[in-house]
Amino acid sequence: MILPMSFWMRKKRRVYLDHAAATPLRKSVLRAMGPYLTTVFGNASAIHAEGAEARHAVEAARTDIARILGVKPDSVVFTGSGTESNNLAILGHLEQVRASGRSYSDMEVVTTAIEHPSILALIPVLTRLGVVVREAAVNEVGVLTRAGLKEVLTDKTVLVAFAYANSEIGTIQPVHQLVRFIREHEDACGTHIQIHLDAAQAPLYVPCTFQSLGVDSLALDAGKCGGPKGVGVLAVRDRHSLHPITHGGGQEGGLRPGTENVAGIVGAAVALKEAQATYGVRAASVSLVREAALSYLASVLPEAVVNGASGEARLPNNINFSLPGFDTEYAVVWLDTHGVSASTKSACAGAGGGISQVVSRSTNDEARARSTIRLTLGEETTQRDMEYAIDTVAAYCAKMRGLTK
Amino acid sequence: MILPMSFWMRKKRRVYLDHAAATPLRKSVLRAMGPYLTTVFGNASAIHAEGAEARHAVEAARTDIARILGVKPDSVVFTGSGTESNNLAILGHLEQVRASGRSYSDMEVVTTAIEHPSILALIPVLTRLGVVVREAAVNEVGVLTRAGLKEVLTDKTVLVAFAYANSEIGTIQPVHQLVRFIREHEDACGTHIQIHLDAAQAPLYVPCTFQSLGVDSLALDAGKCGGPKGVGVLAVRDRHSLHPITHGGGQEGGLRPGTENVAGIVGAAVALKEAQATYGVRAASVSLVREAALSYLASVLPEAVVNGASGEARLPNNINFSLPGFDTEYAVVWLDTHGVSASTKSACAGAGGGISQVVSRSTNDEARARSTIRLTLGEETTQRDMEYAIDTVAAYCAKMRGLTK
Repeated sequence: MILPMSFWMRKKRRVYLDHAAATPLRKSVLRAMGPYLTTVFGNASAIHAEGAEARHAVEAARTDIARILGVKPDSVVFTGSGTESNNLAILGHLEQVRASGRSYSDMEVVTTAIEHPSILALIPVLTRLGVVVREAAVNEVGVLTRAGLKEVLTDKTVLVAFAYANSEIGTIQPVHQLVRFIREHEDACGTHIQIHLDAAQAPLYVPCTFQSLGVDSLALDAGKCGGPKGVGVLAVRDRHSLHPITHGGGQEGGLRPGTENVAGIVGAAVALKEAQATYGVRAASVSLVREAALSYLASVLPEAVVNGASGEARLPNNINFSLPGFDTEYAVVWLDTHGVSASTKSACAGAGGGISQVVSRSTNDEARARSTIRLTLGEETTQRDMEYAIDTVAAYCAKMRGLTK
Repeated sequence: MILPMSFWMRKKRRVYLDHAAATPLRKSVLRAMGPYLTTVFGNASAIHAEGAEARHAVEAARTDIARILGVKPDSVVFTGSGTESNNLAILGHLEQVRASGRSYSDMEVVTTAIEHPSILALIPVLTRLGVVVREAAVNEVGVLTRAGLKEVLTDKTVLVAFAYANSEIGTIQPVHQLVRFIREHEDACGTHIQIHLDAAQAPLYVPCTFQSLGVDSLALDAGKCGGPKGVGVLAVRDRHSLHPITHGGGQEGGLRPGTENVAGIVGAAVALKEAQATYGVRAASVSLVREAALSYLASVLPEAVVNGASGEARLPNNINFSLPGFDTEYAVVWLDTHGVSASTKSACAGAGGGISQVVSRSTNDEARARSTIRLTLGEETTQRDMEYAIDTVAAYCAKMRGLTK
């Protein structure tokens, strides 16, 4: 048997600052999943008692999530990831519009250049179908503004998709304002615009109720908020606004075929419930640690340039800064060997070299975009952890300066 | 807290005979998954130690599965279900062919009318794209023959997709013979035909090595062979023969985006390894129980008409028979209340009323297709269990006869 790396890691100090990429599974979540990994193994689409028990668990999870999000249970669709939820929301809606008789070449989609890869990677796919994709400009801290939207919304716009909170720089979009602006445009044109929100990074820190957001669909990922990996949620105001993107059995009301991942679904519901139940307290406490860390960073490494918005316009657990001139791909490796888990950008954007598209497109500053470090905190992260992490970054910079002298 | 139904169920005898729909998670599988549901929570695409540990587990699982199937590790793609694997194999290959410059309307696909819904439901999708889908006839026990293939293969055929073993009637296709015939046709036409095998029901009972099968891709589902739900595998001879069907990060070599379900992937590898390591012994022992049960069925219920092939041409754990004139949708409900979990058809085909498409299309006998009962055994199923189940079916028939007298 291979000795798990965790065995070795436990021996030294580890400060895990990549909660945007993956969160530990909460104990309460695992506890809730337990029966569905052991005694309760039925196929939720089977009609016997084992199936009914699985079905009951899936529907209870659906009802719980519906209550959290303020939608009807049949608005909640379980998928295999946040990525799949974004794909289903976007490709699934465009296919529904097409099936209703409108050609792809008569549709326009609005998004931004700083989205997660699961939205950005759809742009060439849509373009190939003939859909015109317009990128709304964001400002230097990554905020999508009404002015940015105004330039790209037309009477052919059928869908607007953007992230509630950016996964790299943590910028929270002013969703209410943007939605109101899009609805006004909708009214003026007499059209319907589907508003899709990628909320994968949101549940632990900001409210995710449909009523307050006003969107048409919302993508979540259990693995980003204390739940299991491999489970996504897509909440959709009107399920008839979507067509499935994979095909098979009638599961999930025909929107997502395949035997239901019962344990994962149960875990996702508990994770989302706990995330949303206490997001305010969590946001307040993590903010304090983050703000102290930012002050410490400014004092220890004055050359660090913070990327993204500040205060309430930013996820409380996100720090992202650039160290222009430094090789931060290597910095992250070096930090790791010194006990700090950080990243340069989204894990989905690839661990390889290259620039942060998010920072590049928001700041138009290549040097900044080439030298990003993202530290994403968890509930357990202490001020001491942050000082250790920042000291380690400073030590890296000192070492590099020494080498290049 | 809601008391799980299993609490109540434990009090009475339960004979679970729906292993084709869902298998219990093996203890060894759960044990292997354990660390990845607790201490090891990193994102496998992150470069720090937590990420590397997750990556290590995913790649070890990939290597294990590759060894079992006799392919290179980069031929193994993890998905969210057997359904998704079938979708990726079929839609993904056609998209690759299209991207290479051939129009959809210049492509033909061959399949049968008795496939799983995750293949059947693709037919209207392909048709809409302009692809011609030809259904190869199967004989009365559901066997696809060379003669059946001959009628539908043309020089435009780009893909042939069928199940290794039928999920409803258990008929095992003569894959070697069919593949050889398709390859001869390929040679004669100077074309390439992608052969996709839906092997979701296969791993516990028949060999799944690529060399012996000769196919181009093979879909598996962990939840059907002792592994966790929510994990599929698609093995593909040449990964460049596929394009992704969902879009996002570069995970799975660009073929299936989304944060890797590390625990699920680890569990899938253990389940598939154990399934294939001992399929011969398992097949032999389960066959004995099945054959005894078939004899018992013939003696107790002579009016039962067995559907599907017999002996080695059938999955050892599958029994499927019709009771023409009886309402078997209700029979299955009645069996359940008497402690026997059975089904009428595939869970993915829906629990609702209606006929078995599989039996209808293989036998052309509506009365048989409307009155199917499927009993799928597990390794633990005893002769006694089967006698109890069959006695219960007989009791149902007696009761119904009494009511209609």
